[in-house]
Amino acid sequence: MGLSVIRFELEGTPTWGVLENSGVHRINQSFQHQRDLLNAYFEDPSLFRSLIDQQPLTEDVRFLSPLTEPTQLFAQGLNYASHREESGVEENAGENLIFSKASSSISGPNDPIVRPKECELLDYEIELGIVLRKDIVEETEVTEQNLNEYVGALILCNDVSARDFMFGAPMLQWFKGKGQRTFCPLGPVLYLLDEPDFAQIYNLELTLKLNGEVKQQAMTDQLIHKPPKTISEISAFADMAVGDCILTGTPGGVLAGHSPKAGLAIVMNLTNDQKRREKFIAAQKKLATFLAPGDKLELSIRSQDGSIDLGTQQNEIIAA
Amino acid sequence: MGLSVIRFELEGTPTWGVLENSGVHRINQSFQHQRDLLNAYFEDPSLFRSLIDQQPLTEDVRFLSPLTEPTQLFAQGLNYASHREESGVEENAGENLIFSKASSSISGPNDPIVRPKECELLDYEIELGIVLRKDIVEETEVTEQNLNEYVGALILCNDVSARDFMFGAPMLQWFKGKGQRTFCPLGPVLYLLDEPDFAQIYNLELTLKLNGEVKQQAMTDQLIHKPPKTISEISAFADMAVGDCILTGTPGGVLAGHSPKAGLAIVMNLTNDQKRREKFIAAQKKLATFLAPGDKLELSIRSQDGSIDLGTQQNEIIAA
Repeated sequence: MGLSVIRFELEGTPTWGVLENSGVHRINQSFQHQRDLLNAYFEDPSLFRSLIDQQPLTEDVRFLSPLTEPTQLFAQGLNYASHREESGVEENAGENLIFSKASSSISGPNDPIVRPKECELLDYEIELGIVLRKDIVEETEVTEQNLNEYVGALILCNDVSARDFMFGAPMLQWFKGKGQRTFCPLGPVLYLLDEPDFAQIYNLELTLKLNGEVKQQAMTDQLIHKPPKTISEISAFADMAVGDCILTGTPGGVLAGHSPKAGLAIVMNLTNDQKRREKFIAAQKKLATFLAPGDKLELSIRSQDGSIDLGTQQNEIIAA
Repeated sequence: MGLSVIRFELEGTPTWGVLENSGVHRINQSFQHQRDLLNAYFEDPSLFRSLIDQQPLTEDVRFLSPLTEPTQLFAQGLNYASHREESGVEENAGENLIFSKASSSISGPNDPIVRPKECELLDYEIELGIVLRKDIVEETEVTEQNLNEYVGALILCNDVSARDFMFGAPMLQWFKGKGQRTFCPLGPVLYLLDEPDFAQIYNLELTLKLNGEVKQQAMTDQLIHKPPKTISEISAFADMAVGDCILTGTPGGVLAGHSPKAGLAIVMNLTNDQKRREKFIAAQKKLATFLAPGDKLELSIRSQDGSIDLGTQQNEIIAA
């Protein structure tokens, strides 16, 4: 069985621990970055486990993101059929959509999500994150069979998205709409994988609730471009380091939707940012009510047999 | 007068130096990353200058990029009117286009540029890079007056671009088309700015030659979204660190052009990646001959009065 590592604040200091049924057990070693922790664990899992306190902490702790700057956040788009469909994208549009989120978008699993000034279409995206245990600096063939040499951990991610910034941006570039501060709540658990856990990667259930109502619910067996193929494809053009994370895309159920008007707003105004944004916002607001200050999100990912549990995120939307 | 810092290979070891008329003068201190060098220089310029060898090296050296991983590379698009026009974008599309390039796209100033497998529309983009001397972790108002507190250095960049990957990518995301390895030759000079140099930032001439023929030539006074505004805008959503770089966009003269067919290829096939790419490639190939193995680029940036010279890049295109 793997290890549910967490990072939390203890007397003002970021501290590493392990989450078990009995509570939070402190790890008696400090690691500057998740890279150092991952290297230590996979070099000698037994030694690493011997650093864990037998007794749980008695204090309440505030969870922090287990991944910290600098971390490369690669992200996939349109990677579940249900999300591809609601986005109005043809099925034969089959390429792997890969973009990046700014490192500083990372925030704690229960931190508030700040709606930026002027953002009118704030949206959520629950995603499974895969975290690397090995540097990859050249084109590399990763398969289901050797995946365990490259992937070291799993993590729950929210790829928070300002749809108006994404589709209003010049040439539709997503960096600003996806990369705002607090737009990537991570954790609480960094689940370090043991060999048998790999059989569960496509057997994880993602659930996102908005104000108590289930909005996204799907299994990871629906992933279109799976982790081995995706890591191989990224390796063909960019380097990845131990501790870097790939967000594997979100299933259907986000707030943004597809309508003829929303589609036309983009197509007809591709080179006029202001007009495109205005018309896109108007069309989307007819389809859904977007996130607003006071809204509450609850996200969780776990395997159906209960052996893997990436924990729960609870965030409130606040105004900038 | 500022300092023309370079990084080069000496007996197989990356070494810092200063480029003067007399040649390369070694700096007698090692810095792990440009961040450490920038911090040392701006903490005490006199002390830093005392570390520079009086005598130039007698050996020939191979220049390396002065910026190394991890470096955040923020980049601006459509930031010269002449490039905006050739791209077919309306003038009132006035937002600042900001995207990111992968850190591993950095390469040395004279390293070959590798045309990826399946890339048919390889293109160049000469750009002025501005390098930060201060961490920025919150929304910050940067003005022409306080710019010198935030910007520490200038650097010559080539924002190499695979146009077919950019406009063929799902939802037109540029990350893969801009972020390939060797797609960001940097240097040779990291020009550390002194106070009087700031008057020259908008008086720099960019020149790019392809196989000896001038293809891009422009002055930085044409920049639409200027560095103070751009840094302010990025600071509103993402953190930047000492040594991070903003590529300020390219002037007109790139190979990719605008035609009704190229525009329609995108608009009519926005959700069909394969068809869009095929039609876009066909339209672009009627407009220009794109970079191919054997082609040679030469890039330079210098001020008209000669006080700032960011050096020359000479790259050959090679096949993957």
